[in-house]
Amino acid sequence: MESWATFGGDLHLDLTAGRARGLGLRAALEDALRGAVRTGRLPAGTRLPSSRELSRDLGIARNTVAEAYSQLSAEGWLASRQGSGTVVAERGTPTAPGPAALPPRTPAVRHDLMPGRPDLSRFPRSAWLAAARRALATAPHEAFGYTDPRGRIELRRALAGYLARVRGVRTDPERLLVCAGYTQGLGLLCEVLREQGAATVAVEEFGLPPQQEVITAKGLATVPLPLDAAGARTDLLAGTGAGAAVLTPAHQFPTGVPLRAGRRAAAVAWAREAGALLVEDDYDGEFRYDRQPVGAMQALDPERVVYAGTASKSLAPGLRLGWLALPADLVGPVVRRKELADGQCGVVDQLTLAELIASGAYDRHVRRSRLQYRRRRDRLVEVLAQRAPEVRVTGMAAGLHAVLELPPGSLGEDELLRHAQWLGLSLNTLGWCRTPSDRPPADRPPTLVIGYGTPPDHLFEAALEALCTLVRL
Amino acid sequence: MESWATFGGDLHLDLTAGRARGLGLRAALEDALRGAVRTGRLPAGTRLPSSRELSRDLGIARNTVAEAYSQLSAEGWLASRQGSGTVVAERGTPTAPGPAALPPRTPAVRHDLMPGRPDLSRFPRSAWLAAARRALATAPHEAFGYTDPRGRIELRRALAGYLARVRGVRTDPERLLVCAGYTQGLGLLCEVLREQGAATVAVEEFGLPPQQEVITAKGLATVPLPLDAAGARTDLLAGTGAGAAVLTPAHQFPTGVPLRAGRRAAAVAWAREAGALLVEDDYDGEFRYDRQPVGAMQALDPERVVYAGTASKSLAPGLRLGWLALPADLVGPVVRRKELADGQCGVVDQLTLAELIASGAYDRHVRRSRLQYRRRRDRLVEVLAQRAPEVRVTGMAAGLHAVLELPPGSLGEDELLRHAQWLGLSLNTLGWCRTPSDRPPADRPPTLVIGYGTPPDHLFEAALEALCTLVRL
Repeated sequence: MESWATFGGDLHLDLTAGRARGLGLRAALEDALRGAVRTGRLPAGTRLPSSRELSRDLGIARNTVAEAYSQLSAEGWLASRQGSGTVVAERGTPTAPGPAALPPRTPAVRHDLMPGRPDLSRFPRSAWLAAARRALATAPHEAFGYTDPRGRIELRRALAGYLARVRGVRTDPERLLVCAGYTQGLGLLCEVLREQGAATVAVEEFGLPPQQEVITAKGLATVPLPLDAAGARTDLLAGTGAGAAVLTPAHQFPTGVPLRAGRRAAAVAWAREAGALLVEDDYDGEFRYDRQPVGAMQALDPERVVYAGTASKSLAPGLRLGWLALPADLVGPVVRRKELADGQCGVVDQLTLAELIASGAYDRHVRRSRLQYRRRRDRLVEVLAQRAPEVRVTGMAAGLHAVLELPPGSLGEDELLRHAQWLGLSLNTLGWCRTPSDRPPADRPPTLVIGYGTPPDHLFEAALEALCTLVRL
Repeated sequence: MESWATFGGDLHLDLTAGRARGLGLRAALEDALRGAVRTGRLPAGTRLPSSRELSRDLGIARNTVAEAYSQLSAEGWLASRQGSGTVVAERGTPTAPGPAALPPRTPAVRHDLMPGRPDLSRFPRSAWLAAARRALATAPHEAFGYTDPRGRIELRRALAGYLARVRGVRTDPERLLVCAGYTQGLGLLCEVLREQGAATVAVEEFGLPPQQEVITAKGLATVPLPLDAAGARTDLLAGTGAGAAVLTPAHQFPTGVPLRAGRRAAAVAWAREAGALLVEDDYDGEFRYDRQPVGAMQALDPERVVYAGTASKSLAPGLRLGWLALPADLVGPVVRRKELADGQCGVVDQLTLAELIASGAYDRHVRRSRLQYRRRRDRLVEVLAQRAPEVRVTGMAAGLHAVLELPPGSLGEDELLRHAQWLGLSLNTLGWCRTPSDRPPADRPPTLVIGYGTPPDHLFEAALEALCTLVRL
């Protein structure tokens, strides 16, 4: 890796202060450099531009700079290094301003079974890079400017085809919005709902707490929908007075129940009658291991259902790439909010994902991942059957997580979490996923939510081991 | 480029409907495929998985799939292509649902002198790709997950060093937030200001209308600060009752005046006294062509001034990469808003920019660009001196835009914009940049705001030509 010093990077130096105090050019330069080092603005090891470059930048004689450099080297502020020119010396440099106090992000985790994340070691780095190379080779210049807030047409075209083919979504590139993950997509929708007068959003009784926070941060209240074996009780939507409902029809998070046909129909009927909006969070739609995958609910009524998809499970959350398939009358308002939020998503990642999908590399990656995650789920079930047969694995064979129902008399969920931490085991409980509600929580066995997709292959068995230890405490 | 068909992509097909109507497997499959083609979900040319793969996916005999394929081919729904397997046939496929009505984004522009954008043809594609390759080769797996909402530490470290060295910013990686361009950074700050009780933000009398929209969209009012030869009248801030002020101290946009030392001191003094916040929009800090660049105002008081920088001018707006250097007590609240907005910025671009800066490629690109833009500004001045000497080029030699004052008696600004459109010339007027205000606009000569950085090299002279035609009408 080449250092910027080999050519000399920019360096801001203000000589006016010294000049104003009547110093000569060289003295003023030395003064400015001393100040920059003393205050820590130029930390030890920082490489300075060559005297030639600095003299050109400041419009003063090269000799003056050279003399100042050697003077400060003599004083011990600077040092000359073979090959890397002049650098700020080690001694006597104060540290930069102290770091701002922020809570540590996560405690040390040895066994990561936290749900909601894929195996990050599976991110297809070389396929991604190859797609980026092809995309950058052919992208028009205008792609790097401010373009359509909905995202690049190349990606919206690829997504429209992919979503229709794989998930049965009925849309077209004009109605697709590329957003910074599901989080931003949901946030933009909530802003529009608020604008249009909605006050409440119905959400499933159990879900991801972050989603709850996004909705309330936009000034909307939530009302929880009970869940049963047929999925969310959409038949109760009429009573909620909600302006919208957010559902996970393909694979309820976290319970793993699919939304039955009757309940889908009921949801759409309610939306039409109440003039309400349905948001279909298809967070892991690519990952189902049964033979009869359920298509997107959005296909029942593309003018009432927003389909929300993401690359966070199929590729990686760090990409922050998601998409909304919007009803025609929401395209304008949502695009406007996107414009105000950040203009558009980053163009390089968009063009790269478009190329990845068009080339088939995306399908291949999803298929390989599906196979791996399916094996892991089978292995989880197998190991629990052997080591902890009293634990019930509920939910359908899909996605990246499983729900473990512990027998009555087991430790409570809070105790389990405490023990898990001692074991260096990171996971979740059903209670943690409960949507805030006035109704007292139903009496149910202690239940764990396990992300079997999270750990890399070589750590999976050890994580299962730790899990078995926990559930048998 | 390999097509996904050469291995067979995923295909969603629901046989249950047909089965429910008592159809056999093959008939149900044919029925589902016909439906998918008839509704346009599978447009003409879509490649289908091989019979082997589809049979595996659906868990039915391969023969059944092969028979269904040949039946539908006989009916003209499908067609077999040499080498690319079975595809949806051309004839009789209805078009997908009509596109949502959206206003066309921009009219045809032959000469683009719109300010606020760099020359997009200069985006260093190969340097960016090379940096991405190095970054992806060394990034830890966890980088692809949900990480620090402030952004990757690699980038915040590189930025902290770069901003201190080049712009005299006093910060450290802990106080830096990577955001999706200045737009998002300003929006997040406004959300926090609102939370903390601010109602009004002081902005410069002339600025970018989109900035105005972002501030008001967050529920804050704006009060305009008059401008004079010394920059924004920060001495008037005390009277505004504003909770914050957004300034462009290095190079006021669009007038091009730098904020004088006294005005900087006045701004900071006001912020301390009123407990208010200053936002320093350093939108083109890298591009000054004079010998004594002015350092960042933020250095006067890092606890009162937020420094906002961006890659939109130095690299490309399409990257959507910006950064905030925050006061310690704002880090927590701003990071929280970022978390709720989109979690974090995309990791690949962040790691790539970090590598670009650390390797010196960023400095090199900025230097080369600075040289080019400086030449263009000189050329603009030269051409106008020859062809339209009555036009005054005001503002300092910096940035990517210039301000052209037309002589009294010239066409009005609205007329100029109309004529410009006829000439296929895209530019701006000072009036367009005026912040909404109760005070009547001051009487001033018609003034154009020209982005000389926008066109690619081979179109620059033609754009100047069109500009001369316009100003001499």
